[in-house]
Amino acid sequence: MHRKNTATLLVTCPDRKGLVAGISEFLYGHNANILHADQHQDGVLFLMRIEWDLEDFDIGMSEFRHHFEPIARKFDMQWRIADSDSKKRMAIFVSRYDHCLVDLLYRHNSGEFDCDIPLILGNHPDAEPIARFHGIPFHLAPVSPEKKIDAESRQLALLREHGIDFIVLARYMQVLSGDFVSKYADRIVNIHHSFLPAFHGAKPYHRAFERGVKLIGATAHYVTDILDEGPIIEQDVIRISHRDALEDLIQKGRDLEKIVLSRAVRWHLENRVLVYGNKTVVFD
Amino acid sequence: MHRKNTATLLVTCPDRKGLVAGISEFLYGHNANILHADQHQDGVLFLMRIEWDLEDFDIGMSEFRHHFEPIARKFDMQWRIADSDSKKRMAIFVSRYDHCLVDLLYRHNSGEFDCDIPLILGNHPDAEPIARFHGIPFHLAPVSPEKKIDAESRQLALLREHGIDFIVLARYMQVLSGDFVSKYADRIVNIHHSFLPAFHGAKPYHRAFERGVKLIGATAHYVTDILDEGPIIEQDVIRISHRDALEDLIQKGRDLEKIVLSRAVRWHLENRVLVYGNKTVVFD
Amino acid sequence: MHRKNTATLLVTCPDRKGLVAGISEFLYGHNANILHADQHQDGVLFLMRIEWDLEDFDIGMSEFRHHFEPIARKFDMQWRIADSDSKKRMAIFVSRYDHCLVDLLYRHNSGEFDCDIPLILGNHPDAEPIARFHGIPFHLAPVSPEKKIDAESRQLALLREHGIDFIVLARYMQVLSGDFVSKYADRIVNIHHSFLPAFHGAKPYHRAFERGVKLIGATAHYVTDILDEGPIIEQDVIRISHRDALEDLIQKGRDLEKIVLSRAVRWHLENRVLVYGNKTVVFD
Amino acid sequence: MHRKNTATLLVTCPDRKGLVAGISEFLYGHNANILHADQHQDGVLFLMRIEWDLEDFDIGMSEFRHHFEPIARKFDMQWRIADSDSKKRMAIFVSRYDHCLVDLLYRHNSGEFDCDIPLILGNHPDAEPIARFHGIPFHLAPVSPEKKIDAESRQLALLREHGIDFIVLARYMQVLSGDFVSKYADRIVNIHHSFLPAFHGAKPYHRAFERGVKLIGATAHYVTDILDEGPIIEQDVIRISHRDALEDLIQKGRDLEKIVLSRAVRWHLENRVLVYGNKTVVFD
Repeated sequence: MHRKNTATLLVTCPDRKGLVAGISEFLYGHNANILHADQHQDGVLFLMRIEWDLEDFDIGMSEFRHHFEPIARKFDMQWRIADSDSKKRMAIFVSRYDHCLVDLLYRHNSGEFDCDIPLILGNHPDAEPIARFHGIPFHLAPVSPEKKIDAESRQLALLREHGIDFIVLARYMQVLSGDFVSKYADRIVNIHHSFLPAFHGAKPYHRAFERGVKLIGATAHYVTDILDEGPIIEQDVIRISHRDALEDLIQKGRDLEKIVLSRAVRWHLENRVLVYGNKTVVFD
Repeated sequence: MHRKNTATLLVTCPDRKGLVAGISEFLYGHNANILHADQHQDGVLFLMRIEWDLEDFDIGMSEFRHHFEPIARKFDMQWRIADSDSKKRMAIFVSRYDHCLVDLLYRHNSGEFDCDIPLILGNHPDAEPIARFHGIPFHLAPVSPEKKIDAESRQLALLREHGIDFIVLARYMQVLSGDFVSKYADRIVNIHHSFLPAFHGAKPYHRAFERGVKLIGATAHYVTDILDEGPIIEQDVIRISHRDALEDLIQKGRDLEKIVLSRAVRWHLENRVLVYGNKTVVFD
Repeated sequence: MHRKNTATLLVTCPDRKGLVAGISEFLYGHNANILHADQHQDGVLFLMRIEWDLEDFDIGMSEFRHHFEPIARKFDMQWRIADSDSKKRMAIFVSRYDHCLVDLLYRHNSGEFDCDIPLILGNHPDAEPIARFHGIPFHLAPVSPEKKIDAESRQLALLREHGIDFIVLARYMQVLSGDFVSKYADRIVNIHHSFLPAFHGAKPYHRAFERGVKLIGATAHYVTDILDEGPIIEQDVIRISHRDALEDLIQKGRDLEKIVLSRAVRWHLENRVLVYGNKTVVFD
Repeated sequence: MHRKNTATLLVTCPDRKGLVAGISEFLYGHNANILHADQHQDGVLFLMRIEWDLEDFDIGMSEFRHHFEPIARKFDMQWRIADSDSKKRMAIFVSRYDHCLVDLLYRHNSGEFDCDIPLILGNHPDAEPIARFHGIPFHLAPVSPEKKIDAESRQLALLREHGIDFIVLARYMQVLSGDFVSKYADRIVNIHHSFLPAFHGAKPYHRAFERGVKLIGATAHYVTDILDEGPIIEQDVIRISHRDALEDLIQKGRDLEKIVLSRAVRWHLENRVLVYGNKTVVFD
């Protein structure tokens, strides 16, 4: 499938009259053919995603900032732009459970994710064969509690070295330090195996089983320095019954985790997610 | 809850550069505060819904056409505008099954539907008590196969008399003539008790039961002159199993029908639905 | 629809060989035609539901205990039997929000619930007209914080007077005392407007909105003396997005609450629910 | 996880009093510890699944038929028994799309499917690398329209040679002949990429897109000699909107197909599915 080369602009700013007119006049003035545009107001806040074809656009990506800055300043915008030609570089962190990793790699392989994956990082060696099958470098990076800071320093060096844009925690069983997280703010996607805020923290399936819930869930969210409290990108649930033993919950949950995480990753890659406060807008 | 007085503009036209800029400049020029805007491209077609606060807007609704027509002509638009101050007038047609009617009336009563219901029309008398409880006039309009044209003439007269904008068929068991339908094109919402295109026509639950499906569905669509073939507004399904007898399908289906129809009615009332070809865009 | 007259036996006991053989021989020996049988093991615990046609059964319901007691004693059973001829008597408690009440009454009216409703009890007068429309006595029973015990005494007297078997809290906004609850253990069904254990307690929709969840839920459970911690009977969720304001959550939640509560009530009426520990088995 | 060695008996026969008593007495008499039992009546037909621990059971699997036959004859039963010690042998047929194959192999690898997979058969070579990664023999078996009978003969020989018990068509794009199908009646599981009976036959996603449905589905069913008309084992759907292009339907559909097929395969493996008429009972 031939994909158009497009640019996507994400904007957050105070809501004011003339905003949409200002942006669309600017784009029209530079001969953009708008493909998608979506916006959201939350109280006094305005959020927008706008994607256009670069074919006839008369500004190069490198000069965009120069031309757009006056408008951005006028409306007090926080903004970023992404170019479909510059693929994002994604690292995957994994521990022993490899179902999410396998799923992500298969989706990448079949063209569902438009990104590069230069690095898989595991604190256990279990995922190495599947990484090798897909031809992606696997780095074993064990983390011991007493040497966590050292381990994270080495991880950060690896991420820099590989020019990583964002990180996916594919059932990675280590808690990242606040320092680490702050370096990739809104760029670390985690999958938690419960319907947050229910059962945050350890062993959510065990606790769901104990409580006797009739649905189990999974939640993909950006990691912040408070465990399982970051902005939620996507959630879903599946029905269980008294017939399901704990092992059945874990098995059904695997399917949920894969799907919920893969949606969050795709939306992140497609620049559909805007964080504001502790929430997300997901432009569809 | 105090609601703002807003205007909603729906536009369909060939996709061209400058469209969004043209519309947003026009609105900004007349001091509109845009609340929601959403658009969709399907090939060469452009569809848009835009809603703004009327508080500071400097054109009255009666003069809007005059001011907007030049832009509409320039871009070859089909368009319509709705004003939240002018409530739509909805008629409900019903036969014997009253679950959808009861549901619609309750939602209207609780403020979920922002419309007037000046008329309920039944070809059986069963629904009269519930209509009376809600203080809405009920007209008994029996339809015999041989006098269908006469019956429809009387119905059309009633609709005109009550200034009806659109019609909801709440499990109304008569097929409307093509002539009748053409007078309310894209303004008659029907609920069909299957997941269309599966089981179109008569007795869908019986046929679903025979076929041994594992989910049953319901479909809300605009009525056209081909039975069960009109543009789909909304669909949903519910799980069944071998334990469910035909009566259980019918009972579970009732809940589906109510919910699916009520969503379609609400979206129609909120001017969220645009028909193109035999499909709909539902702006959310 | 003609319904068969049936008996339903519910059994909980330690799991032992010969249990099923013992029960089925007993029933066969008395000429029962078994219609449904379902069982569940959880560790050392055995739970069973068995329903049979009473037509050829050669023991009257009044003598059943006498005949069955030896088997029950042998296997150390807790058991109860219900006869479809003896309709359960259900009381509904309601406050201001009447959507669940309206839904329950409509279902009762259309034959979905096979029970009597001799009593609706409200701590506000709002629900009286709809109760009257359905011909069911409405008792206004205001509850003031300082006179709660008195109010509950009067309620309990009313329940006794009307021979109430079980109580449905249809968005009843008062917390019942432990003393009250203990008199109707496993016989008070409540609907909580969240996906428990998330957002237990007050204002769950507000808190769901604050947290930015992508699904909202509802939970029907038996009331115990710990708020929102009783055995869960049924749960369901619905998708929301950043476009949904708090009012939209509340509106979408109403549909969920109605459906989840109605399932729990139907299953309770059909003797499908067995409580063990703080969980339920729902035989389907 | 240590799994108990169990036997599962599946019974279909005319409904008669004493059936359950007869079977449970037999099992109790031979010291069986029943783990699960489930039954279903559909009109005059009785269907049952019963699973017991073989630890104390005093009949060997090889003598079971001899001991059970008198009861089976008395009640005119069709029956079969499966022993968890004897793993089923599953063949997978695949064409170019490999998402279902990859999913099945991963589930097998992670212990979700308790079976052997001695054979993957493709009419295109694309799936060979993933088969090799999992250490499973891949046979390339191209099928040309004019030599279909020859091709099927070779396939049947391969299936016999590998002692195949049942076949999974994992998006296998060839129609099997009635002759082939009759040799594996109720033992060929296919995944069709629509919500049957909607869009049976070719290109269901294209037709769903054309029709403007709001949900797409997938259906797993046993293959019969009428295309897409066999007994349905499982179905599920996912929501789409006007924003989804045909490619999005195909991508969302892949996730559905994987999950629906994997459920059907697991239930078949666990001897949970009984076919009667053109329907299935799936014991849960």
